[in-house]
Amino acid sequence: MAKRVAVVGAGVSGLASVKCCLEEGLQPTCFERSEDIGGLWRFTEHVEEGRASLYKSVVSNSSKEMSCYSDFPFPEDYPNYVPNSHFLQYLKMYANQFNLLECIQFKTTVCSVTKRPDFAVSGQWEVVTMHEGKQSSATFDAVMVCTGYLTTPHLPLDSFPGIHTFKGQYFHSRQYKYPDMFKDKRVLVVGMGNSGTDIAVEASHLAKKVFLSTTGGAWVMSRVSDSGNPWDMVFTTRFQNMFRNALPTPIVSWLLARKMNSWFDHVNYGLAPDDRVQLREPVINDDLPGCIITGKVQIKPSIKEVKENSVLFSNTPKEEPVDIIVFATGYTFAFPFLDESVVKVEGGQASLYKYVFPAHLQKPTLAVIGLIKPFGSMIPTGEVQARWVVQVLKGLHTLPPPSVRIEEVEERKQNKPSGFGLHYCKALQSDYIEYIDELLTYINAKPNLFSLLLTDPRLALAIFFGPCSPYQFRLTGPGKWQGARNTILTQWDRTLKATKTRTVRESPSSFESLFKLISFLAFLVAIFLIFL
Amino acid sequence: MAKRVAVVGAGVSGLASVKCCLEEGLQPTCFERSEDIGGLWRFTEHVEEGRASLYKSVVSNSSKEMSCYSDFPFPEDYPNYVPNSHFLQYLKMYANQFNLLECIQFKTTVCSVTKRPDFAVSGQWEVVTMHEGKQSSATFDAVMVCTGYLTTPHLPLDSFPGIHTFKGQYFHSRQYKYPDMFKDKRVLVVGMGNSGTDIAVEASHLAKKVFLSTTGGAWVMSRVSDSGNPWDMVFTTRFQNMFRNALPTPIVSWLLARKMNSWFDHVNYGLAPDDRVQLREPVINDDLPGCIITGKVQIKPSIKEVKENSVLFSNTPKEEPVDIIVFATGYTFAFPFLDESVVKVEGGQASLYKYVFPAHLQKPTLAVIGLIKPFGSMIPTGEVQARWVVQVLKGLHTLPPPSVRIEEVEERKQNKPSGFGLHYCKALQSDYIEYIDELLTYINAKPNLFSLLLTDPRLALAIFFGPCSPYQFRLTGPGKWQGARNTILTQWDRTLKATKTRTVRESPSSFESLFKLISFLAFLVAIFLIFL
Repeated sequence: MAKRVAVVGAGVSGLASVKCCLEEGLQPTCFERSEDIGGLWRFTEHVEEGRASLYKSVVSNSSKEMSCYSDFPFPEDYPNYVPNSHFLQYLKMYANQFNLLECIQFKTTVCSVTKRPDFAVSGQWEVVTMHEGKQSSATFDAVMVCTGYLTTPHLPLDSFPGIHTFKGQYFHSRQYKYPDMFKDKRVLVVGMGNSGTDIAVEASHLAKKVFLSTTGGAWVMSRVSDSGNPWDMVFTTRFQNMFRNALPTPIVSWLLARKMNSWFDHVNYGLAPDDRVQLREPVINDDLPGCIITGKVQIKPSIKEVKENSVLFSNTPKEEPVDIIVFATGYTFAFPFLDESVVKVEGGQASLYKYVFPAHLQKPTLAVIGLIKPFGSMIPTGEVQARWVVQVLKGLHTLPPPSVRIEEVEERKQNKPSGFGLHYCKALQSDYIEYIDELLTYINAKPNLFSLLLTDPRLALAIFFGPCSPYQFRLTGPGKWQGARNTILTQWDRTLKATKTRTVRESPSSFESLFKLISFLAFLVAIFLIFL
Repeated sequence: MAKRVAVVGAGVSGLASVKCCLEEGLQPTCFERSEDIGGLWRFTEHVEEGRASLYKSVVSNSSKEMSCYSDFPFPEDYPNYVPNSHFLQYLKMYANQFNLLECIQFKTTVCSVTKRPDFAVSGQWEVVTMHEGKQSSATFDAVMVCTGYLTTPHLPLDSFPGIHTFKGQYFHSRQYKYPDMFKDKRVLVVGMGNSGTDIAVEASHLAKKVFLSTTGGAWVMSRVSDSGNPWDMVFTTRFQNMFRNALPTPIVSWLLARKMNSWFDHVNYGLAPDDRVQLREPVINDDLPGCIITGKVQIKPSIKEVKENSVLFSNTPKEEPVDIIVFATGYTFAFPFLDESVVKVEGGQASLYKYVFPAHLQKPTLAVIGLIKPFGSMIPTGEVQARWVVQVLKGLHTLPPPSVRIEEVEERKQNKPSGFGLHYCKALQSDYIEYIDELLTYINAKPNLFSLLLTDPRLALAIFFGPCSPYQFRLTGPGKWQGARNTILTQWDRTLKATKTRTVRESPSSFESLFKLISFLAFLVAIFLIFL
């Protein structure tokens, strides 16, 4: 009999999990507390308890070619960065294409997931759910937890002395939907993650004044990278990753800083991160520097004190009048339906082997999908995790014993720099390509570049020098997709299709060809110098 | 007796003209048709007849250090690019500082400016004005026309077949004030100048869909240039200008294209100008590429046909539904109070010697100030024009005879490329530094770099390699300003003051110094290679 798998949540990771179960002959049942799929990506006018909440203007931070399911590219006429409404449409197309909806029970909340008495032998779980006030219980051979990490707001009010005397309005960024409320107000946004920065920029179109307060600073990147290409199609290549990982961390950090500062000097804009060695998640925002240089957004350090109608920042005794404070102070995550003995969350870090399997569980029949923030896209990461989990559930890949897993988790907690490559804050972050390759290796789905170079050099070069797009993960092994090769070779066509909507004469000057040649020679010299 | 000068208009050029008259002992009377100063820069909720009209969100396109009056820098806490409300404040400070208001007659329209019967001898003008319905007439020794070129909208409806069948709303960009009207609409903006692009970007925050139609394309630059410095402080330096003007036009055009494309590839974004040799005014916009890559703004070619509720573009038979069309098709200019025999406007070009003096007038006692679009800032350009005019009026600088002046105008009309440097469309455009230097030479106010290099090398280097800021035009000659030197040497401090509002540790990594050194050496090598 096929193994029964409970999937908790029908967001991007939940959908991938259901699909992976189906394609490997498992029998998934997905419990979704809301009335539709899409999780994070389904915008609603009002915040819903227990579900991530989007503001109306959210656009994806990774490009369409880099953030799709590996066997299901975005429609070619979609923009390169997908607005949330399009994103939800895409997820619905995916669910329809692979008949996922029939496996999903909507409006069904998972109350508890507990080990069956015979867990040590069977590895089974008792899943108690609630649907329209009625509780039910069922036994599953495995559980895939896909609840994400953007549900529980983190709002440490005690860190803002005087906040309770503040007579204006304040709220967590999770409550934010539309900018209209900022009209002619003086707005302070606290926290410079992606949401905080988006909100500050959006407020600046309407507000009288906008302050963006950041304690630690951050690198800000544009979606529009070198020559206008999507940042992740330029940054996330196997070639560059190899290059970066071969260099000592201080050099890589320095090169990264140099790259980041080539757009604008983060020191001169008051943004440079204090910790320039350990890489925090960079902020993706196209408009912030423009807002700063036109005075629409003013960067501020941490808050010293909140007064009735103003705020005091730590660098100056001058009080700034403020009407609205938005706390974009991020999220914590928790598994309220799981006992702490299954997954322990401590200091924002879960005791999960490779971010997926509870480290000390005897039977690896529970997995957490999508609890990771790779410096790349979430969707393919969660999908590869799900593919790996399904192989483990089927017994085709065996995990190391708990002691080894616990060691991996402990090591990650200590987060000792390896000395090479970028140094991520490993609580949730990891090197995208390295992490995915590791999981692909477990399930024998990692493309073999050397043999490809002999059999299909064009593809091999595209894979090595081109963007590490998700289609690469479907070239071989279980879940191999016939369309993968062609989809890789046409990824730039689809990228251009979205922006090249007016045809332009390409080469008007006779000098251009000559200079292209010179430019190419200069490029070769540069490469030569780099490798010298 | 001091010469009496009529100044028409109290915008940026009018104010400069009044001030220049006062400082040189002439007696200016400024006629302003509206009730306040500021011209273009005074935002009003409703469009006013005969006056330029701003939309609410306008921000200056040149930076504060480059676009101030040469002896009156912007307050140091002003943002680097000044929003229109701040700009108006600045103009008011200027008017107060130099007691200009007492020379201005508000709500006074100039009806006609005609030669006095004895013009051939006296050079005098009869100026007829209208104030609160009452007409008066007065004789002036000279007239300075400062009415700008953004008053008369250019809307060639015949170029858009079917526009009269269109059932949606359409209007000239001059009517545009706020984006609210675009909420959930499908908007088409026609014309990719600065206004059109601004409006498209602003509409994209609210609209359902935005198309930006351009026939010829355009280069798009960001206010945020290399390392985040204001574009004009990087681009407009004497060093770079010399370098550019020493190179053949095709090479300079190619270098410019390369620079423009380093931000994003204008071909891939459907924006590259068709004519890449003659430089049209580039568009300054920080947000357009971000809007294109996220699909918020879609670039379209020229309109083929307008239908009842949709538009057909020239590259595809697909109709695009459209609710609102904004024609950002620019402006024409005219001098309704002047006879054609004084200034002739033909094909968007006025018969003005050096863009200022009517070419064939026997007596140079009428001048047009600010009828030029330098690739730089308007304010210092108009101010230098006014300083030159005042010297001419005082008889301290003599113009060449009409025949020479007419020849200059004719040559400009033909606009033959010189073969070197950037090739401007010379109807209104010119090389900023070259043009200003020419006028400064006429009045002996051009700084002598060679002698400065000996007497004040620090200043000389700042002038040659640093931004060609307006303070340079006050170092010597008539109107010399004692504060000029110090203001030049502190221009970068004021620039940073506006953005560096959070202090950041400068050099956290011990490797940084080493790499700075290496980087500097690489820079030297690059310089060496460039000059090779």
